[in-house]
Amino acid sequence: MTIATRALAALPTDLPQVERLATIPLGFVAGAGIAGIKASGRPDLAIVATQPGPDGIRVPASAAAVFTPNAFAAAPVRLSQAHLTATEAGGNGRFGWATAIISTSGSANAATGAAGDADQAEVANVLAAALLTTTEQTLLLSTGIIGTRLPLDRVRAGIASVAPRLNATDAGLAAAAEALRTTDSVTKAATTTITLPDGDGYTVRPVRVTGIAKGVGMIHPRMATMLSIVLTDASVDPATLHGLLRPAAARTWNQLSVDGDTSTNDTVFLLASGAAGAATVTAGTREAVELGRAIEAVARDLARQQAADGEGATTLITCQVSGAADDADARAVARAVVSSSLVKAAAHGRDPNWGRIAGAAGNATLADEAVLAAAGLPQGAARSRSGTAAELDPNRLRIAIAGHPVFDGAAGGPVPFDREAARAAMEGPELLLRLDLGLGEGTGEAFGCDLTETYVVENSEYTT
Amino acid sequence: MTIATRALAALPTDLPQVERLATIPLGFVAGAGIAGIKASGRPDLAIVATQPGPDGIRVPASAAAVFTPNAFAAAPVRLSQAHLTATEAGGNGRFGWATAIISTSGSANAATGAAGDADQAEVANVLAAALLTTTEQTLLLSTGIIGTRLPLDRVRAGIASVAPRLNATDAGLAAAAEALRTTDSVTKAATTTITLPDGDGYTVRPVRVTGIAKGVGMIHPRMATMLSIVLTDASVDPATLHGLLRPAAARTWNQLSVDGDTSTNDTVFLLASGAAGAATVTAGTREAVELGRAIEAVARDLARQQAADGEGATTLITCQVSGAADDADARAVARAVVSSSLVKAAAHGRDPNWGRIAGAAGNATLADEAVLAAAGLPQGAARSRSGTAAELDPNRLRIAIAGHPVFDGAAGGPVPFDREAARAAMEGPELLLRLDLGLGEGTGEAFGCDLTETYVVENSEYTT
Repeated sequence: MTIATRALAALPTDLPQVERLATIPLGFVAGAGIAGIKASGRPDLAIVATQPGPDGIRVPASAAAVFTPNAFAAAPVRLSQAHLTATEAGGNGRFGWATAIISTSGSANAATGAAGDADQAEVANVLAAALLTTTEQTLLLSTGIIGTRLPLDRVRAGIASVAPRLNATDAGLAAAAEALRTTDSVTKAATTTITLPDGDGYTVRPVRVTGIAKGVGMIHPRMATMLSIVLTDASVDPATLHGLLRPAAARTWNQLSVDGDTSTNDTVFLLASGAAGAATVTAGTREAVELGRAIEAVARDLARQQAADGEGATTLITCQVSGAADDADARAVARAVVSSSLVKAAAHGRDPNWGRIAGAAGNATLADEAVLAAAGLPQGAARSRSGTAAELDPNRLRIAIAGHPVFDGAAGGPVPFDREAARAAMEGPELLLRLDLGLGEGTGEAFGCDLTETYVVENSEYTT
Repeated sequence: MTIATRALAALPTDLPQVERLATIPLGFVAGAGIAGIKASGRPDLAIVATQPGPDGIRVPASAAAVFTPNAFAAAPVRLSQAHLTATEAGGNGRFGWATAIISTSGSANAATGAAGDADQAEVANVLAAALLTTTEQTLLLSTGIIGTRLPLDRVRAGIASVAPRLNATDAGLAAAAEALRTTDSVTKAATTTITLPDGDGYTVRPVRVTGIAKGVGMIHPRMATMLSIVLTDASVDPATLHGLLRPAAARTWNQLSVDGDTSTNDTVFLLASGAAGAATVTAGTREAVELGRAIEAVARDLARQQAADGEGATTLITCQVSGAADDADARAVARAVVSSSLVKAAAHGRDPNWGRIAGAAGNATLADEAVLAAAGLPQGAARSRSGTAAELDPNRLRIAIAGHPVFDGAAGGPVPFDREAARAAMEGPELLLRLDLGLGEGTGEAFGCDLTETYVVENSEYTT
C-alpha cells in the first residue's frame, strides 16, 4: 500500500531581502591597498575603521566576534581576543569595543610561535598610531600560508599608504572586500536595511547592515579561511550585539562546509557604530529580533556566496531539514548531508542518489553542537546532547531532490520517480535537498558545494 | 634560538605478526557461490558456519559484534541484533551465540522498510533450515545498493547450492572472503596464531585468529560498507569475547577513514568455536590479554588493507600520535588528520604540507568517542569528554612527515627541512605521518588514504 507522498517545498524564510552590494553603514570608513604580501601584486591589505567624533577621536563601536575553535588559532585570532577582553573584561574575548579592523592577505600568521605573536602586536601598534586610536581598540584578520611570517616592513608601508585614504564610501568598503580575497573568484558582499525607532519613539530611522567576506575552501595559497566583517549603524551594546551575532552565525556560517576543515584563522567581526541615530537596541525587544534577522540575512547570503565559490565547485547545495525533534537536530542532519563526500560527488554527477542522502542523514550527530558551545555559540536546546546521534526514524523520513520526492519512509521507503527529470532538475548553479524527519517542529539548513576533480587537482598539484 | 628537533620514529607495536591468508580456525566450515544478486555474475553469497558436534547438531560459537551507529541501520544489522539478544538477553544485541553467518553482496537491504525486514527474516529461515540449525543462531551481512530488495528466489537457490559444499578448508574461507567483495580490488584476509594453556595447565595449544573483510569507501555499486568476519578456535564466553573485540575495533576499524561516511551496513562479527582445545579464556587474565592482542593484530591488518584499497587511493596513510593526554585524545587527533580532505589531497600530491596537518590536528574533537560509546565501544577514559576538543598545545607539538621533522612548537614552529627529500620519501604505497603532542603518555593511530581525481570520477560519473 502506497500513500501519496506529500511535496516538500523549500522552507520559507522570514529574513529580510539582501542585495549583493558593499553599501557602507553610517559611522564607518574603509579602504584597501597593495602592501606586497601577496606575490601576485593584488590588493592584500584592508582597513575598516570608525569615524572620528567632534573631538577628533575615533568613536568606539560595539564589537562582537566569532572565532575558530581550532586549537591552532592564529596570532591575529588570539590578539583580537585579548583586545576585546581589554576593552570589556566581561566579554571574555567575544565582545567589547573597537575602532579599527585590519586584514592582511598572503600570510596566515598561524603556527609562527612567539615571533608571530610579536609581529601581530606590531601590526596593531602601527595601525593604532596611524589611525590615532589605541592598540587595544584594534581587531586583526589574516589569511594566507600557514607557518610564514608577516613581512612587517611591507605591512607598515601598506598601513601608511592606506590609512590616509580611508573614506566613508561604498567604493572604499568594496575595495576592502576585494582585498580580503585570496583565490575567491568573486568579491563577496551583502547588505540590507531595516527601520528602527528613533529615540523619540515616534519616527523611525533606516538602519543598515552590510557584510563583506572572503570565501571558504582550501584556497590558494593553501589556506582554508573564512573571514567576514559585518558593519551596522544600529546602536547596540556589545553584549547584546554578541547575543545577536551568535545565533545568526550558528544558523549560517556554522552550517557551511566546503571540505570539512576548520581553519586556524576563521573569524567574523560585527561592529555597530550607532551612527544611524536610532534608539539603542536592548536585548529581548522586538527591535532586537528585527536587527538579529537583518544580521542573519546578511550572514546567510555571505555563507551562500562562499559555498557557491568553494574550490572547484559547480553547484551550491542547500540542504533544508524540517520536522526534526528540535532545531539542533535539524541543523546536525543538514550539516551531515552537505558534508558527505558521497553526496557531494553525486551532486557533481547530477545523480539523484537518495541512498547517499539517507545514509549521510543517518550518520548525523550533534557532536558539532559541542564544538559550537566551546566556540561560544549556542546549542539548539538547553539540554546537553553533544555527541549523541540526531533523532531520526527511517519510517518517518521523507526526502526530495530538486523538488522530486524520492523517499517516503511511511510509504515503505523508495518512491518511484522520473530519474531523467530529476537529473535535469539537478542541473544549474543551485541544488535544493529537502528532508522532513516527521518527528517535530525543528528546522534548519546547511550550505555546501559539489566535490569535483578540480578540487582534488587544485589541492594536490600545487606545491608550497 | 632553535633546539635540535628530536626524531619521531614509527610507534612500536606489541601486536603479534599476521599473515595475509584465510587460514580457517578449527571448528568452522565455509564456502561461497554465485546466487546472481550481482549483475556481474561474480561470487556474491558466502556462508561461514560451525561444525556439527557428535550429535549432528552444529555447536554454537560465542559471538560478539560491532555494528554501524547509523540511524538508518540496514535490515541485516537489526535482525542480527535481535538474534544475538534472543540467544543471550544480557548481551543487548552485542554478543550471544551463533552457528552460521551469511553474507549477500549486491543489495544492502537498507531503507527497504517492513518488506526488507521480512525478506531478511526469510533469508535467516532458509539458512537455518539448510544448515539444520535455529533461525536465532544465524547472523546476517549484506552489502550493495541501498533501497533495493533482496532477490529472494536467487538467495534461496544460492543457499541450497552453497550449504552442502561448506568445508573446513582454507580454500573454503578464501572463497567466502572473495564473495564478500564488491569493488574491492583484492581479497582481504589476515591470520595469526598464539598459544594458550591447555585445560591441564601444563601444556599449550595453538589458537588461531583469522579475519576476512571487504573494503571501505564508496564502493561501486554505491555502497560504503565495511564488513568483517573474524573467527577463532579459542574458548571464550560471549561477554568476554565482546570485551576483547570492543577495544580492538576501537583502535583499528574505528580509526579507519576513506571518505568520512559511515554506512548503513557496517558490521564486524567475531566467533569463537573453542575447538582448539585450549582452556576457556576468562576476562582479566594474561590469556585474555594475549587473545585480545591477536584479535587486534588481525583487525589492524584488515583495516590497513581496507584503507590501502580505498576507492581511487594510491597511498595508505598511517597517522601515529604520541604524547597525548590520553589514548582517546591521541586517537581523535589521528582520526582528524587522516580524515582531512586537505591532508588527503596533499598526500596525493606528495606535498609535505605540515600546515594542513597542524590545522587538521587542531580541529580534532573527541566527539567521535561519544559515537563510539553509542555503538557500545569504550571511550578512552572513564571521564566523559565527548564533544570537547582534544588537548593540544601548538608550543609543544612536533610533526614529522615520512621521517622528516617539519614542525617543532618548542623550537619556534617550522623546522627547516629538505623539501625534495621529503617529497621523495612520500612516494610509494605507504605514508607515515607522526605527531607528538608533548603532553602525556597517550598514543593512538589512524588509517586512511589519499584523495584522488579517481575517487571523484568514480563517485560522480556512475549513475544508479
